[in-house]
Amino acid sequence: MKKLNVNSDRSYEILIDRGILNHCGEYIRPLMRGNKAMIISDTNVFPIYGGIVKSSLEAQGVEVYSHIFPAGEGSKSLSSISKMYSDLADSGFSRKDIIIALGGGVTGDMAGFAAATYQRGIDFVQIPTSLLAQVDSSVGAKTGVDISQGKNLVGAFWQPSAVLIDPDTLNTLSPHFFSDGMAEVIKYGCIKSKELFARLERENAADIIDEIIYDCVVIKRDVVQRDEHEAGERMLLNFGHTLGHSIEKAYSYTGITHGEAVGIGMVMMTNASESAGITQAGTAQRISSLLKKYSLPCCDSTPLKTITDGAFGDKKASGDSLNVVLIDKIGSSFTKKLRKDELYSFIKGGCKND
Amino acid sequence: MKKLNVNSDRSYEILIDRGILNHCGEYIRPLMRGNKAMIISDTNVFPIYGGIVKSSLEAQGVEVYSHIFPAGEGSKSLSSISKMYSDLADSGFSRKDIIIALGGGVTGDMAGFAAATYQRGIDFVQIPTSLLAQVDSSVGAKTGVDISQGKNLVGAFWQPSAVLIDPDTLNTLSPHFFSDGMAEVIKYGCIKSKELFARLERENAADIIDEIIYDCVVIKRDVVQRDEHEAGERMLLNFGHTLGHSIEKAYSYTGITHGEAVGIGMVMMTNASESAGITQAGTAQRISSLLKKYSLPCCDSTPLKTITDGAFGDKKASGDSLNVVLIDKIGSSFTKKLRKDELYSFIKGGCKND
Repeated sequence: MKKLNVNSDRSYEILIDRGILNHCGEYIRPLMRGNKAMIISDTNVFPIYGGIVKSSLEAQGVEVYSHIFPAGEGSKSLSSISKMYSDLADSGFSRKDIIIALGGGVTGDMAGFAAATYQRGIDFVQIPTSLLAQVDSSVGAKTGVDISQGKNLVGAFWQPSAVLIDPDTLNTLSPHFFSDGMAEVIKYGCIKSKELFARLERENAADIIDEIIYDCVVIKRDVVQRDEHEAGERMLLNFGHTLGHSIEKAYSYTGITHGEAVGIGMVMMTNASESAGITQAGTAQRISSLLKKYSLPCCDSTPLKTITDGAFGDKKASGDSLNVVLIDKIGSSFTKKLRKDELYSFIKGGCKND
Repeated sequence: MKKLNVNSDRSYEILIDRGILNHCGEYIRPLMRGNKAMIISDTNVFPIYGGIVKSSLEAQGVEVYSHIFPAGEGSKSLSSISKMYSDLADSGFSRKDIIIALGGGVTGDMAGFAAATYQRGIDFVQIPTSLLAQVDSSVGAKTGVDISQGKNLVGAFWQPSAVLIDPDTLNTLSPHFFSDGMAEVIKYGCIKSKELFARLERENAADIIDEIIYDCVVIKRDVVQRDEHEAGERMLLNFGHTLGHSIEKAYSYTGITHGEAVGIGMVMMTNASESAGITQAGTAQRISSLLKKYSLPCCDSTPLKTITDGAFGDKKASGDSLNVVLIDKIGSSFTKKLRKDELYSFIKGGCKND
């Protein structure tokens, strides 16, 4: 087993081990201050892993409840959260009880938000079962809910009590969802590790996924420890995301995955920074090729103006300017402040077909 | 002007001054990191004070928006919060902009929760206009929303950037709402200050309200500074509230005010502790007389079993036991853990008519 400690106002451990799901109760029980646990999961994941988690918790004497919502980003709404609150209250959950988020990014974000706000905050444990959630969203204490105006516009920073990562769960992930997570893996290479990036080019990620998960979690852990509330360095993790979120929004969050949109965002931004002479020539091409290798698109037909205008509804926007993340070469990233009028022309400069 | 500093993760000032509303912009502008302010207020308060606050902010160059919701506890719902999020997003509010909570406890609790969760947390300023909000809910960083299962079952701890208290706003408060706040004032006397309690007996509170507000805020500030997240001493502030919340719930939050219910809760609990020999004889009688002086009831016809059962849905409950707050004499309080079966018989012991 690999263990990582995350230091924050409330420190916690990330445990990575194949098969940890089967004995998760042994790790969760000692963290509990009460006796009740609510497994929050979706209609895809609960039927596969819900029983295992429940049994393992019950073997430790925990009183286990479950709340299952329809799988998909469409469920990431305030009305879903409202149903979670009702289930928690109806099941008599107190401040000392715990929520277990079992699933992908949507599950972790929503269960985490419910934990952050039910009775002004209760404990929760993350058991991420998708690659995206394992390498990204389960670490760093961000929780979120979508509203019609944008993704994750509602949320809170709330530390889990622990994150349990079982790479075996990736066996049941469809190739499409595996690719979705690979976009974030590639992002870590772009912003912080040329070694990781080169390894993804050289080898097949699926063959070395345990090591990749560990490397990504270490990168993310180090960044969020230095800047938990996204005042500075943490923004680097948004490479590809400002445009990516806007692209997802243009698709009304259907028909494109988060990873696909982020991949396109990384390429668009890097084409622009290359054209502006900021980034080493050929970098956008390397990113595009790597995205293709992992079955991810690297371009999109959404009109550029729609994308850049939409970016100003993003949380990173502030007034008439926003911080975009750029890389000068693979593995090295920084932020740059752009005004609304500058963003369009900046991205336009890198466009081949708009 | 009186100034009080509250030390917490994010320290803030409480300013108490007659007429401060007219120049609130001068105090708020220097706290702002962006240029937009959203005044969140209700249909009772905004027509009286909204214009003054808006003008004062605009005089400082702030871009002012407003969100007005129907007055009353019935509005304290997730659907109201959802409308606030929409207005904030539609008005292009970023993480650097600010919310101004202008009104009573419901407004402060909801605007505070919206601030705690919009874009994972933005700044907000409390301008409490009711006595209840000035002496209690605006200080201490608790925010909350009701769900059908109970009051404030959803919420977050979120520090305001400042609290501006203008005692002049109490001039437009109906006597009924003034009494509502007096219950919390009496509570402070019960738990922490025999001098305050005696003064309320001796004098007419309305004549010395500025000093009373200051005294209450100091008591609350000192308690929450020592225990922000209610792990210990802060629980004392819930004197009368465990039963009070349950009584409010039995009334479905209509037909009884928070203050009325808390007053009844204080008397019931003190009758019980007197009967159990814990509290100085005659204490419940003194509290009852003081409540009557300020036009508050001291008893209620809700069946005792309904009240004690309802108390276990309260946030302070944990599993099969809960911490109740008792006083041994006026000005001196402590907590005691009671099991579910014990609570009923404990309260029953002090009952004259159930």
